Amino acid sequence: MDETVRTSRDFIYKQQKELSVIGGIGALLGWDQMTYMPPKGAADRSEHNALLSLLSHERVVSDEFWKHITALHEPASFETLSPEDQAVVKRLYDDVEKSRKIPSSFVEKMAKKTTLSYQFWEAARKKNDFKIFSPHLSDIVELEKEYCGYIGLPGPLYDTLLDDYEEGMTTKRLTEEFSYLKSALSKLVDKIVATDVFEKQKDPDIKVDADMQKLLCKKVLEVMKMPDDSFRMDTSTHPFTISLGYDDVRITTNFERKNPLFSFFSTVHEAGHALYELSMPQNAYKDTVISDSPSLGLHESQSRFWENMVSRSKPFWEYFYPLFKKTASQYFQSIGFDEWYGSVNQVRPSLIRVEADELTYCLHVILRFELESGLMQDRIDVNELPELWNEKMDKLLGVTPSNDVEGVLQDMHWSGGSIGYFPTYAIGSIYASQLFQQLMTDQPQTLSEIQQGNMKNIISWLRTHVHKYGRLMTADEIIQKTCGVGLNAKGFVGYLTDKYSEIYGF
Amino acid sequence: MDETVRTSRDFIYKQQKELSVIGGIGALLGWDQMTYMPPKGAADRSEHNALLSLLSHERVVSDEFWKHITALHEPASFETLSPEDQAVVKRLYDDVEKSRKIPSSFVEKMAKKTTLSYQFWEAARKKNDFKIFSPHLSDIVELEKEYCGYIGLPGPLYDTLLDDYEEGMTTKRLTEEFSYLKSALSKLVDKIVATDVFEKQKDPDIKVDADMQKLLCKKVLEVMKMPDDSFRMDTSTHPFTISLGYDDVRITTNFERKNPLFSFFSTVHEAGHALYELSMPQNAYKDTVISDSPSLGLHESQSRFWENMVSRSKPFWEYFYPLFKKTASQYFQSIGFDEWYGSVNQVRPSLIRVEADELTYCLHVILRFELESGLMQDRIDVNELPELWNEKMDKLLGVTPSNDVEGVLQDMHWSGGSIGYFPTYAIGSIYASQLFQQLMTDQPQTLSEIQQGNMKNIISWLRTHVHKYGRLMTADEIIQKTCGVGLNAKGFVGYLTDKYSEIYGF
Repeated sequence: MDETVRTSRDFIYKQQKELSVIGGIGALLGWDQMTYMPPKGAADRSEHNALLSLLSHERVVSDEFWKHITALHEPASFETLSPEDQAVVKRLYDDVEKSRKIPSSFVEKMAKKTTLSYQFWEAARKKNDFKIFSPHLSDIVELEKEYCGYIGLPGPLYDTLLDDYEEGMTTKRLTEEFSYLKSALSKLVDKIVATDVFEKQKDPDIKVDADMQKLLCKKVLEVMKMPDDSFRMDTSTHPFTISLGYDDVRITTNFERKNPLFSFFSTVHEAGHALYELSMPQNAYKDTVISDSPSLGLHESQSRFWENMVSRSKPFWEYFYPLFKKTASQYFQSIGFDEWYGSVNQVRPSLIRVEADELTYCLHVILRFELESGLMQDRIDVNELPELWNEKMDKLLGVTPSNDVEGVLQDMHWSGGSIGYFPTYAIGSIYASQLFQQLMTDQPQTLSEIQQGNMKNIISWLRTHVHKYGRLMTADEIIQKTCGVGLNAKGFVGYLTDKYSEIYGF
Repeated sequence: MDETVRTSRDFIYKQQKELSVIGGIGALLGWDQMTYMPPKGAADRSEHNALLSLLSHERVVSDEFWKHITALHEPASFETLSPEDQAVVKRLYDDVEKSRKIPSSFVEKMAKKTTLSYQFWEAARKKNDFKIFSPHLSDIVELEKEYCGYIGLPGPLYDTLLDDYEEGMTTKRLTEEFSYLKSALSKLVDKIVATDVFEKQKDPDIKVDADMQKLLCKKVLEVMKMPDDSFRMDTSTHPFTISLGYDDVRITTNFERKNPLFSFFSTVHEAGHALYELSMPQNAYKDTVISDSPSLGLHESQSRFWENMVSRSKPFWEYFYPLFKKTASQYFQSIGFDEWYGSVNQVRPSLIRVEADELTYCLHVILRFELESGLMQDRIDVNELPELWNEKMDKLLGVTPSNDVEGVLQDMHWSGGSIGYFPTYAIGSIYASQLFQQLMTDQPQTLSEIQQGNMKNIISWLRTHVHKYGRLMTADEIIQKTCGVGLNAKGFVGYLTDKYSEIYGF
């Protein structure tokens, strides 16, 4: 490696390190904002966030950084680099090239629009009137189109947005997979709602106080081997996971929800994200662009893996339900195992995505995918959304929102400019089931380990087959390497069919 | 104001704003580190802190900043500025001129030495052996001398260090004030220990559980009108106050200490700091060097004002003790008012500064003042410290440490390079009593307001006579303006004599 190459190499590692540190500080600002910040701290906090974004943006698009990246990317220099350096340079080149395509003036315009738009989304919810929000959503759709113009990926504009959250994913690919999944899920829902079990099902009448909820969460975190010295849990309105560094990952839950198990499942979900964050590649890749998740879908697969595949499974409850009964007998003594297992897996077509069960959840996502891809391809106008939303809900789930708050206004994503984000939720569920099935093939003792509350081998399998890659490949490439095939909903449908036909007896 | 003046003016305000925002972010990093950060997060956190310090330092000493400051400081430009701008430029000129005198290499050397030195201080405490720490303390003393060389204030070197914490304060001035105070306090201690009351005094035998301690703290915070929407309290090993912005000030306490009232008095103390932070000048001075405390001593005066002058006073307990009894009758029912009032004001010569009572506290501080000024003036060698410490303890307080942990190793300050800091604690106590006496002159109804738990007029008096000035004057100038005389311990001694002669009957 000659001197100029070494200089460039040192520079890009130093710059990535600074970006990583700025990212960690930003994570703390975000965590605090959602957990402990006093309400009037918001004004100061927006100044903190703005400065940090600026510091980060300046570094990403700096000409000096780009000069060194392109120097290293030249074949003559590139071939003198170690394989690890090459992976970093390749990834960095693509990332920074993309960032540099977006004018700073656009970033600013988008930031202003989304701040405003979020306020109007909130106002629209308060007044239950989509029209308050719709002009701003129209602006956002236009800004997204402008954005796609800068990036200029081939194919429909929506592909450019998808690529931001799920690199390499296309409208065509998702349309195929989601069409199949939609039809299969709808059929399953039809079968379930026709059963006696469905007819008779009701929520178990339990109220678990916050302290006891906390204790149960603590127990599942122990079983998931969450490390006390580099992990913590707090509370916030909406649960989330955030990483402040390699040894400081935090999740939140909420003990105030109507459903007393909300905190339990959300804890498992977020702990799944956290296990991933705690296993990001280090050594040569520490504080580089490789040491990250390749996509939101793959990140979501880790949370869904634990939440759905593990903690809604029968073996899990064979271990955990006796522990619930022992720990909190006052709440659970009168409920038998079968009733319990059924109740944590109740299917109930409903209006709100975040309250949906494992089976109907993806239908909510597919609805949004169809609408937002339609918006981006000018097949749908923003003003048609409320009606189209309600029609699709009726068609997919047999329920109809009685107002916009229960319908098109329920999610904040679009107000924040996150169009193309929703599909990653369904991609995560599909990947999770693919991974779980591969795990059972690789380690057939998995179910009996779960039944014994022994998650050690599961965690190490995930580390070896998912976590350790960071962004060395795309999510789809990782799934393909590990499971033999990329995104594929067949196994997911098979798993759901087996599980729910047993529970509902069809 | 001409165009170039306006450009310079805009620049210095923007730069100060960025520094203020960086300060707020740094405060959050510090707060989190002491409250919620998982232990292994420390490595990441030191990277966060290092980057933020660098960003701040770069901005303070930037040539462009200095160019604009000096341009505005030129008489021809200066006289075209508003009085507020003039105040900012004057203050900024002095601050930045001082910062620019210190080479970056020195800052780095000092940071490395103090990090190391802190570790050796901890090790020395663990092994109860000053010799483990002493070579590092010697290095720090030498570095402090080097620092004084850069700054070059007139007078003894120690004056330069004092000036960092208490602008304008000198060894000469403190020696005068502290000699008087030392002799007066020693006499008072002698009188007290000779009384029957002292002979018979014992700690009331109460254990208050953490929840109840918390409730009592909450009640005093309400009385002190701490605003829920811009203030919060958490727990940490050592209580502290930190400001993340104009509307986000946080304190901590600790419910685990042996003394069940530790949390109560520390809460009052920190809330005193917090009230000050929440009243920093805004408008023309927001995010400028003026919007800050002029000295640590004045800041400490605000905490001591509430902790000593208010919450250890008889009228305070006439209001609060019935409330204690009502809220936590199981703990306090058997203790009468006089016994209670005596017990919260027990004098007991003891070894550890942070556990000292109101009266003996300043003797601990004066001991450190004498030692550190001696070190800086080469009258004392580091190796003599343990013996000198013990001799002075015996002379001042009639108690002798049986080992270094109880003696010279008890405080971390020196290991962090904070020589010249200790005097501010005593200065704070003296200022507090001066302010309280002036308040009683200005508002004679104060004691009866305290007796009614009505702190409104006290708070507004402090705002008008202390808080609103920010750094427009030095601490001593503020005290002089408000109380007619600068630092003066006479009133403090008078107050202590009156109070403790009544309690101890001498």
